[in-house]
Amino acid sequence: MNAVHKIETVHWVGDVDGQLVLIDQTLLPVAFQEHTCGTVEDVWEAIKMLRVRGAPAIGIAAAYGVCTGLQPFAAADHDSFFDRLDEVVKYLAESRPTAVNLFWALDRMKRHASAMRDAASVREIRIALLKEAQAIHDEDRRMCHEIGRIGAELLTDGQGVLTHCNAGGLATAEYGTALSVFFTAQDQGKQVHVFVDETRPLLQGSRLTAWELKQRGIDATLICDSMAAQVMREGRIQAVITGADRIAANGDSANKIGTYSVAVLARAHDIPFYIAAPSSTFDLSIASGAEIPIEERASEEITHGFGRQTAPEGIAVYNPAFDVTPAELIKAIITERGLIEPVSVQTIAERIGGNA
Amino acid sequence: MNAVHKIETVHWVGDVDGQLVLIDQTLLPVAFQEHTCGTVEDVWEAIKMLRVRGAPAIGIAAAYGVCTGLQPFAAADHDSFFDRLDEVVKYLAESRPTAVNLFWALDRMKRHASAMRDAASVREIRIALLKEAQAIHDEDRRMCHEIGRIGAELLTDGQGVLTHCNAGGLATAEYGTALSVFFTAQDQGKQVHVFVDETRPLLQGSRLTAWELKQRGIDATLICDSMAAQVMREGRIQAVITGADRIAANGDSANKIGTYSVAVLARAHDIPFYIAAPSSTFDLSIASGAEIPIEERASEEITHGFGRQTAPEGIAVYNPAFDVTPAELIKAIITERGLIEPVSVQTIAERIGGNA
Repeated sequence: MNAVHKIETVHWVGDVDGQLVLIDQTLLPVAFQEHTCGTVEDVWEAIKMLRVRGAPAIGIAAAYGVCTGLQPFAAADHDSFFDRLDEVVKYLAESRPTAVNLFWALDRMKRHASAMRDAASVREIRIALLKEAQAIHDEDRRMCHEIGRIGAELLTDGQGVLTHCNAGGLATAEYGTALSVFFTAQDQGKQVHVFVDETRPLLQGSRLTAWELKQRGIDATLICDSMAAQVMREGRIQAVITGADRIAANGDSANKIGTYSVAVLARAHDIPFYIAAPSSTFDLSIASGAEIPIEERASEEITHGFGRQTAPEGIAVYNPAFDVTPAELIKAIITERGLIEPVSVQTIAERIGGNA
Repeated sequence: MNAVHKIETVHWVGDVDGQLVLIDQTLLPVAFQEHTCGTVEDVWEAIKMLRVRGAPAIGIAAAYGVCTGLQPFAAADHDSFFDRLDEVVKYLAESRPTAVNLFWALDRMKRHASAMRDAASVREIRIALLKEAQAIHDEDRRMCHEIGRIGAELLTDGQGVLTHCNAGGLATAEYGTALSVFFTAQDQGKQVHVFVDETRPLLQGSRLTAWELKQRGIDATLICDSMAAQVMREGRIQAVITGADRIAANGDSANKIGTYSVAVLARAHDIPFYIAAPSSTFDLSIASGAEIPIEERASEEITHGFGRQTAPEGIAVYNPAFDVTPAELIKAIITERGLIEPVSVQTIAERIGGNA
């Protein structure tokens, strides 16, 4: 596990008859293993079992999954082929219920095929669909790099930064959102030292973020979530950057549980708190974070989190999966369309308004 | 494990020839098992291996350990008996290097025996030493109850409170310091709902505090450390109470890592933050928390918590065992000598000055 691996969260191998290969994230950080999906059932299983995770990465995997699912229908007539397309899209959409990018990517694939229905052969449509999946993949890659470029301008050589959860390459095509900022800063010759919250209960920080940073040779130090305040107090943090799952029209941002805690602590220590997220993360139909429901997850994530029981039988548990950081604690939001600063209904509408 | 157990962290069974029995805390919360120490080597091992932990509880166990160690010398002459006493005290003092109460209790036992040397038989001295160990035990019990009584006045029926780590009966004779406040409030008929930080890396909150609260029938909810801010924001916490390991003359308080984080979050949400600790926790020779060194512990506590690797091989780790909460974040300190409020050099000197 000390080998350096190129992080390609998902990639397609071969031509239209090829296969989807993805990093099996359930085995990280103990083992780096690629997982080949030869059938649409394999792709469904990989999404369901979190072998691939992170909203953008799930969308890309699903797009390729459509191509995989159509391979057995290479010789079908148009009607059978399009029936199969509907079937595959419906099937993949049921792999995970909440990832918005999944539905968005499947819908885009379906519309692309439909537009060609009367003017192209099944083979031509299959080739076009693979190109469309690759376009989704490429757009995500470019988006991540652009976020990195814009965010890296906020950092200077020698700074310490803190991140929470995994907003890295493993959640996207390659470079990530928050982590893209650190990768880009390093590419520009700026040394940054990243403190990584382990991110209980599922430890995406220690399992995934620490692994990614180490893979890319970035100075990183792992801490428990409860140590962030102490590290800030010691003067070792000059900026906090995290990702987001959903951003309301006023800038209130939902992200992994513990993000709000970090934002409050950053404010108390006069440290700027940034969110890095693509424009697709904004949900302008929601006025504020108060409208974002807080999902609760299984208590076993806390009571049996390390493969061992660490809490008494039957203890009540509260396990909210995310929290909402109010806009007033966010210094700026780093998007591929530019920096949103200050964070307000107006500045967000100006940058992101064209989404709808 | 759903049975209700009387929490007697340590207790002596029988007369001067009896045995020390303690709850094996390394097995909690999965198994409740009492561990009998028939020899001084057994007592030494129990302290060393953290079967008994928490500074006051270690002191009590060591005092009884002296009695155990003298049993084979019941028929010895005075000189041999006192040589053995020196030997036993020295041996037990080496079980753990940092617990101040350990040295204090051993010294007290030794001084008690020495004062009787010329006027009493070996048997009389042995009986007096057992009584002295029981006195140390009883004083701790009374101290905890007094802290509970004084602290419970701060709480009203129906409140939600948050605690961090384990400042409970398992760290003391029976009732604890911070937890004693909750137990006493319940005894007074006040319903309090306790939110328990799991307290990474060693999970004393989920392993010990949650177990104690459940044993005593107190409404308790376990959360990850990163969720405290969210629970505060939801308006579910009206007070935070933790223990302390060492309190400087100005009130700066060292306690388990994450306590400072909780104190900052409490301030941001206008929630009073209290410390519950006996007068023996104050170290008036230290002017402020800046003089308290921050001990770093093994990285494996974070990377391999609970028997499973959850971080990449070779990642740098920062694992401070405690942090210092500055006096200005502490609304009051609850001691057995009364409430110290506001927390200042002067108010502390008034209550605790007699310590030296």
